[in-house]
Parts: sequence; structure tokens; C-alpha cells
Amino acid sequence: MVTVALAQINPVVGDINGNTRRIQEAMSRADDLGAQVVVVPELALTGYPPDDLLLKTSFIDANHTALGEIASSSGDALAVLGFVDQRDGSLFNAAAACRRGQVVGVYHKHLLPNYGVFDERRYFEPGEDHLLFDTPEAVLSVSVCEDAWSEDGPVVQQGLSGAQIVININASPYDKNKLDERTAMLADRARRAGASIVYVNTVGGQDELVFDGSSLVVSPYGQVMARLKQFEEDFALVDVPLGHSNAVRAEGPGASIRRVRVGLPPAPSGEVRGVVAEALSVEAEIYGALCLGLADYVNKNNFKKVVVGLSGGIDSALTAVIAADALGAECVLGVSMPSVYTSPGSRDDADILAHALGVQMIEVPIRHIQDAYLEALQSAFGQTPEGLAEENLQARARGNILMAISNRYGHLVIATGNKSEMACGYATLYGDMAGGFALLKDVFKTEVYSLSHYRNSISPVIPESVLTKAPSAELRSDQKDEDSLPPYSVLDPILEAYIEREAGVADIVALGHGRDVVGRVITLVDRAEYKRRQAPPGPKVTDKAFGRDRRLPITNQWKEGPDEDLPARATGGGGEA
Amino acid sequence: MVTVALAQINPVVGDINGNTRRIQEAMSRADDLGAQVVVVPELALTGYPPDDLLLKTSFIDANHTALGEIASSSGDALAVLGFVDQRDGSLFNAAAACRRGQVVGVYHKHLLPNYGVFDERRYFEPGEDHLLFDTPEAVLSVSVCEDAWSEDGPVVQQGLSGAQIVININASPYDKNKLDERTAMLADRARRAGASIVYVNTVGGQDELVFDGSSLVVSPYGQVMARLKQFEEDFALVDVPLGHSNAVRAEGPGASIRRVRVGLPPAPSGEVRGVVAEALSVEAEIYGALCLGLADYVNKNNFKKVVVGLSGGIDSALTAVIAADALGAECVLGVSMPSVYTSPGSRDDADILAHALGVQMIEVPIRHIQDAYLEALQSAFGQTPEGLAEENLQARARGNILMAISNRYGHLVIATGNKSEMACGYATLYGDMAGGFALLKDVFKTEVYSLSHYRNSISPVIPESVLTKAPSAELRSDQKDEDSLPPYSVLDPILEAYIEREAGVADIVALGHGRDVVGRVITLVDRAEYKRRQAPPGPKVTDKAFGRDRRLPITNQWKEGPDEDLPARATGGGGEA
Repeated sequence: MVTVALAQINPVVGDINGNTRRIQEAMSRADDLGAQVVVVPELALTGYPPDDLLLKTSFIDANHTALGEIASSSGDALAVLGFVDQRDGSLFNAAAACRRGQVVGVYHKHLLPNYGVFDERRYFEPGEDHLLFDTPEAVLSVSVCEDAWSEDGPVVQQGLSGAQIVININASPYDKNKLDERTAMLADRARRAGASIVYVNTVGGQDELVFDGSSLVVSPYGQVMARLKQFEEDFALVDVPLGHSNAVRAEGPGASIRRVRVGLPPAPSGEVRGVVAEALSVEAEIYGALCLGLADYVNKNNFKKVVVGLSGGIDSALTAVIAADALGAECVLGVSMPSVYTSPGSRDDADILAHALGVQMIEVPIRHIQDAYLEALQSAFGQTPEGLAEENLQARARGNILMAISNRYGHLVIATGNKSEMACGYATLYGDMAGGFALLKDVFKTEVYSLSHYRNSISPVIPESVLTKAPSAELRSDQKDEDSLPPYSVLDPILEAYIEREAGVADIVALGHGRDVVGRVITLVDRAEYKRRQAPPGPKVTDKAFGRDRRLPITNQWKEGPDEDLPARATGGGGEA
Repeated sequence: MVTVALAQINPVVGDINGNTRRIQEAMSRADDLGAQVVVVPELALTGYPPDDLLLKTSFIDANHTALGEIASSSGDALAVLGFVDQRDGSLFNAAAACRRGQVVGVYHKHLLPNYGVFDERRYFEPGEDHLLFDTPEAVLSVSVCEDAWSEDGPVVQQGLSGAQIVININASPYDKNKLDERTAMLADRARRAGASIVYVNTVGGQDELVFDGSSLVVSPYGQVMARLKQFEEDFALVDVPLGHSNAVRAEGPGASIRRVRVGLPPAPSGEVRGVVAEALSVEAEIYGALCLGLADYVNKNNFKKVVVGLSGGIDSALTAVIAADALGAECVLGVSMPSVYTSPGSRDDADILAHALGVQMIEVPIRHIQDAYLEALQSAFGQTPEGLAEENLQARARGNILMAISNRYGHLVIATGNKSEMACGYATLYGDMAGGFALLKDVFKTEVYSLSHYRNSISPVIPESVLTKAPSAELRSDQKDEDSLPPYSVLDPILEAYIEREAGVADIVALGHGRDVVGRVITLVDRAEYKRRQAPPGPKVTDKAFGRDRRLPITNQWKEGPDEDLPARATGGGGEA
């Protein structure tokens, strides 16, 4: 048994000085508590993902200097942490082990993910060696994130080479099935390796990504011995059981194995340590991810307050509730921007919600602004019939007002659109899409409802009428979303199949959907690519989010849908699909 | 000598049916003219880059079916073309060789670029074999793009294995030094390989990329034997000289070599064929790239007309001129949107320009719109002092008007901002940044001037006063760009060093710039990342463009500049830096 401190910290991308301090604090705390080993996440020193900061020599150099400082201050516990190692002009996603003032070993990540949100082969070369520590108590090894995801990859190879505890440092982003998937994967790898796995994950929001923490210790028999909190910084000492053997086994890897002899402090006395944090429900998980994603975007970018347009609809209601929960009601400003099409019910609902949340609310009517636009455009529009242009003008007047408030007071504008709208282009570019952060961008409309019910089950803040009335953009008389889109209960499963699972028309029809509606939805999704390209970032909570996770050309004549010629797509078309 | 047809075509991403037809037409034409070999660019069948279309099974299948059709229709000439090959669940960036109804060989690209604008390792596995064709006339080999860029890579290895002519198919994007760089590189590789190289490049615009064509034939001695046109489709028969030897040499590669025996039609009679198109000046090159990038964005997305806000400034003037040159004056609508700060000179200049170009011009004044905004915001703003908010409201009113015209008539809005502004955040998000395509996004302000002078040297269309007056956003009284930014002659070289060459503060100071101005400029660039993330796409013409070429986090506390704490960045701050 080895007593390992799992330091589930929240580093900030680019903040090498701050991250150094965060790492040193975790190491001191581990030493103070008598831990034998302390583990800090992948690339904790630079934050993850550092992206093209990795192309800057000054950045890489600062990271090396900081590693030196961390090593100098290292104490009795063997400290394992993530940094960028530059050797002979190549970069490696690396783990350093430090003890008593020295770097005692460095491991280079073997498997570099280059799919989904990951671009690691843009920067890093793969490592080829394994690093085993012969300590008085056990044989330990070190690996990084993706190294665990291959059935016969480095984590398993290290176990087969004699490691009894495999340390695996991570920056693994959340999506809604991730914890179960990860737990099952680690249980399998631990059994194959015949070793315990100490899986330490980053926690925190970074632009489009939310790292959920949920660090784990899994025994050689695949049992979860410890789990840290989701969506919070956490720190725990865990007594990690040893794997079966410390002898190299015949099935071991061909890659070269470096063995380093290091001491460890004596095991602390007392009862066996371990903690298994409660696993959240799906709704609580997504809610937690959205709160953390928003709070970290706001705080890491030094905003003090956010501003949200409150229409009385469910998207803006949920957005305001999450913002108030994540930041405190005093950090949220609600703005009602009624037009001639705004129903009295919607205005009331917005007021009731703001009051229930304790959020400040102001009103900026757009009626006269809309009139001024229409007057100015009179000669340009001539006798052409009214339509989308008049609708979008209103949405953009609202976007402009929110941005003006942002300019004047420095508040961050939170856009309120959901994934169903973003998918179908049922949103106005520079209008309701305007903002610095799009909180619900990866949340389908049906999930907006389930998250609202979940939140109301804790304490009822969203008025019942908001949950029950038919969704409407209120940009013309008697408008309903279902005038333009299939019902969300039909739409969302089609979107999920097409976007998240890359299903073709035939696959989706086979799920029981009509060919016409499938073709229509796919055409809407394909045609809205130019809008999504200009959307604000927002937190990924599904298997495939819009943004770096899904990279499609705008100019694209591939037609998955019905084989009709696409009409010209007016840039900025939206509000109505 | 082998007579090779170089088919420099313009495929459309996703348009597998259309691309099949384009390829078949090139093959027929080559057969008709008696070519022995015909070469079509990299991934011509799917268009380049297909991005995440490659994750769709239906897309890959359609591409295989189309290859079958192309092979069936192949004639006497050996046809080499790019497609996606799926084998055992892996994808390869591949070249097929077809003749007389059959696929006679397939080569998989070895070197997969995953830097800059390229993401090939996201999709493809690297090939390991070489493919040599033993023909009655010569030994030919096939390679793809990046395979040529390594000094001892596949192109050189194929020469050392006995290939006398190495065919290299490409989708190589333009930037302003690319032709010279490519020519020198190919001359070196041809000499090392002891073989001629037939380099066939795609031509055309695709979102942020412009493929410049400029296909080349280089002799084993490194001489340019043929060069096709830049920025245009082109087709030429070239008599390609043979390399030194058809025997495998000792220095040949370890990788496995597949040799296929194929026939060729007899060499056509007549004089030795070859054509060397004139190389354009730097200004003509950039101008040509912008025209092609715009025209293809417009045409491939089925727009009929574009709309440009004409302020009387040089950026909008150059934008309108390029649009008129690329699309025809009748496809351009100019909109003047004067405010109280618009000088009479600016209004006149816009009129004079529109008249000189023959472009239709309408006026939509924004004065009353601005008044309506300020009135509506009165209680929200209270007694706080005027500033950026009032400036940005005007820019956004203009953005909203252009988008309304787009919604009503289906025209594409062209944004007019330049790279210097995009770099420093001296632009209003949803204001002057609004649009579907940002034509000058990768053109520094000093280059906007040189391109304007270049264009005026052909026929004078931009009024002299536009070229000589001090740049101003005209969003408040007596505003000048230099109130907020260093002079562009100082700014642009600093931006170029920081952005395109990843130079640090010390490197840039060493070029002769003051530490203060360098620190200030870098801070501006870093803080504007969130704006650029929401910018429209625009054509890359430099070594490093904003967009997929430069991937930086928004949330980023790395400070290359002076080590002061950054103030909160108001989302949508801009207009003034």
C-alpha cells in the first residue's frame, strides 16, 4: 500500500506563475499530511489545452524555468506533475517526477489524441520509453491521459513490466457519459495491467471545455477505491493497494524501460484512507458543468458581472438561473427589451423570475429603435414584402443594446441560444447569438426543459408558465417555433443522431423518423454552418459540441439530405429557419 | 520524354458528383490531345480540405463509388488523381492511377501535415509503400503534396528507387512567398531524386484558403520546364524529360516498393511542349488571391450579389474595387451610412468611387437610429460619461443595416476590416466586423495602401484623397486611428513579427522597436482574441492568418508583454482599442 495524495487542481491556461504556485501548494499540503506520493494533473504547469502558445519559445522556456522552481521546492513526497518537455527541438506532453529538490524522472506521453477537441499531434512528438520507479514500498509507473485509453497501451504495458501502481495524469474534458465510460475503461485497464491506477484529472472551465475532476483510484481488481468530487477542486490522501507482482512479465512491451530507484517517506499511520464522492445524476452533472464553465470563463477573464437579455422564455430563464447560481445573484444583470410583439405574459414572467432570483432587472424597450431602422431602410426596401429582415432587425437591436451595456459597464454578455437552435440556424447572427459566452450552446431544447425542472426541484425559481407555454421567438404576431421547426421532441433525437453520431439519412430513418423531416432537418443543419462559425464559445457537455469538436467547411456542396439544389443562403438569415 | 497533361482544376468541397465530372472532362481532354499521362490534384474528388466530412461513412462511400466511375471511363492515358481510400477502417489521403477502365494502382500519402492550416492526422493514417509504374517509356512514381517537402522524403526516395518522373499531386494553399519557396524546394528535390517532378496543384478558393495553382514541371537538373497560371484553372501538355536512371540505387528507401507494369499510348508527335506562365508581382499575386478567394466563396455558396458598406475610407474602397473586379460591377451594391461624424469629404469619396466602378450605391443614414438607441438607453446609462459604447452603437447600427439588406435581398455582406485592425481589436464586433466574408482580414493596413496603388496603376479608380487622408473610423469628432494605435508603418512590422513569426518581446525590440510600443501592441493583440473568434472567414494570404492557421485560447493569462495585470476585457469592446 502506498499513500498517494490526489491533487485535483484548477490551473489557468497560460498562467505559468499562478500554476506554479497552485502546484507548490498542493505539494506542500501533501508533505504536511505525510503523503508518500502526490499527483497533479496533465500539463498543470501550462494549463490545458495551451494550443498555439506552444509555438512560442518564450512560453516553453518559462515552463522549463517554472519546473526547475517546483523541483527545487519539492519535499519528501514523490511529486508527479504535467509540463511541456522540450528536447532537441521537439516538444513532448510530459510528466515530471520531483523529490527533495530534484527532477528524478521525466516521462513522455506515448499516445497523442488528435480527434474530437484534441490537436496534440499539432505540437507534440510521441514518447517511446516507459519510466518505472523502484521505491522501497512498491514499483510505480507514470503515464499521461490517452495512454490509458488503448487496451494494450502504455498503462497496461507498464503493469506488465512490473508496475504495481500506475499513475495516470489527465486533462480529460467532461461530456455527459464520460464518468461511467472512464470508470469502466480504468477498471478494465487495471485488471489487464494487474496494477492499481491512480487517475488524477484537472478540474475547471477553459473556453469550450469543462474538466470535471472526478479523479479515481481503481484497484487491480477493477474496484473504485476512491473518487474525488465532480466540478470542484478537491484533494485527498488515498491508500492505494499494490498490484500482483513487481517482476517483469513475459508479455511486457518492446519499448525501452527506464528504471529509477527513489526513496519515499514512511507510510503515515492511521486508518486506511479513501473517499468515494457521490456521483451526480445526469441533470446535476450537466448543471454542474454549465456552472463551472461559466464561472471559470467569467473569473479567469477577469469579468465582475454578466448581463443577460430576459425575454420571458425558457432559454433566457435557465441562463439567468445558472448565472445566479454560478456567480451570485448580485453579479447578474437582467435586461428586458420588449417590442410590440412581446406578450404581457412574457414580460411578467421575466419580472417574476428576476425577483425570485434576486437579480437586478432593467428595461430598454426597442420599439422606437425598430421604427428608426424601418424608416431609414424605407428607400432600400421599397415595396418588397415584409419578412425575415424585419424580424432579425429586432433581434439585432437587442444584441446591440446588450453590447452597449457591456461596453459601458464591462459586463460579459451571455448569449442564451440552445443547441437545437444553433443546429438549425434558428437564431439571429449578431442578435440573440451576440455575446462573449453562449451558455446553452451544447444543450438541446428538450434538455433545457429537463434542466429547468431539475433546478426547480431544488427550489422553484422558474415560473410554471415559462415551463408550459409554447416556445416562441416573439419576432412577429402569433409566432411559434413549431411554425418553422419540427416539435423539439422529434427534432432533438434527429439532431443528436446526425451531429453526435454522424448518422446518414438512412440510419436516421431506420430509427423511426420520416424521410422528409430527416432531410429537412439535415439541410437546415448544413446550411447554418456559417452562423455557427461566428458564434461565441460555450461549454461542451455532449459527445460532440459545435466548435473545435466539429470542424466542417462552410463552403460545402455535400448533400446528405434530399438531392435538390440548395437555394442561396443569405448570410445572417435566421430568427426564422 | 513522356507527354504529361497537367490538369489544374478547381474542385468544390463536398461536390463529389461535380468533381467527378470535372475530373472526367480533364481526362477526356488529355486523351483527345494524345497525352500519355494526365494528372489531377490532391483529393480532387472530395475537394480540399474536406474536414469532418471525412467522418461521414456516406461521404467516404460516395467517394469510392465515384472513383469506380472515373476508372470505368478512363482511356488510354494513365490518369493520376486524388481521392480518399478506406482500407480496414482506416482512411488514407490517396492517389489512384487509372487506365482503360481499371484502377491500376493506389498510393497512400506518407507525410501528413498537421501544422498551420492542416489537420491531416485528425483523419488519415500514413502510407508506407511506394508505387512505381514500369511503362514502355520510363519509370514513373506517384506521391502526394507534403511527400515532397522533406529533404529525404518519399519524392526523393522514389527517385532513388528508380523513378525517372515523380508525379506529385497537391492542394497547396497560397501565401505570399509560396511560389518561390515551392520552386526552390522542388528544384532541390528533383536534383536529389535525379528525376523530373510533375507538380500539379489545385486552384480555387475554399473558405479561408486560396489554392493558387502555379503547377510546375521541374527537370532532374532543377530547371523549371513548365509553369501553369496562377489563380486560374489551366491545362497544358508538357513533354517531361526523364531522370538519370531507372535502376534502383543503393541509397533507396527501406519502405516496400510495389512495381506495376502499365502501358502508355504512343508519344504524340510535334514540337516539344511546355509553357512557362509569367510570374506575377507580389501585389498582383495578393490581388489575384483576394479576387479568387472572394469569387469562389460567392459562387460556390450560390450568392448572386454582394453588399459593401462604403465609408469613403481606404479599406471599404479597396474591398469594393476587388469585388467589382472579381464579380463584375453589377454584382456589387455599395451602401453609404452617414452619421453626424461622417465628413462631407468621406461621403463624396464614396460616391466618386462607386461612380468610377459603375457600382450601384444607396444611402441609409444612421443618425435617427443612433438617437433612438441613446434615448432607449438613457436610464440604463444614467449620468455615466460618453465613450466607447456610443461609438460602437454606430458601427453596429451599420452592421445591422447591411445584414437587413442581406436578409431582404440575399446578398452576401463583405466585411471590410484589415489585418492590422483585426490584430489590435480596433474593430467593432457585430459592427464593421459583421458579414459573411472578411476580404481584407489577412491584409495589413500598409498593404491595403500598396494594393490600392497597384490597382490604381492599372486604371485609376480609387480617389487620390482616399489614399492621402489620415485613416479615421469617424465614430466621434476629429477621430484618427493614430489617436489609439501607433502609426501603421510602425505597427505592421511589429504585428508581422509577433503574429507570423511568433517573436517574443526581446526579439521584436531587437528589430529596432521601442519596448513600450511593443508591449502595448502585444497586449492589444492578446486581448482581442475573443473578437477574432467571432470574425467571418477571409482569405489567407500571409504566412500566418487568423483562423485555423493560428489557434490560441481566449481564456489565456500568458503575458508576453509587460507584466502588469490585464484589466477586464469588455466583450465587444472595440472601435477604439
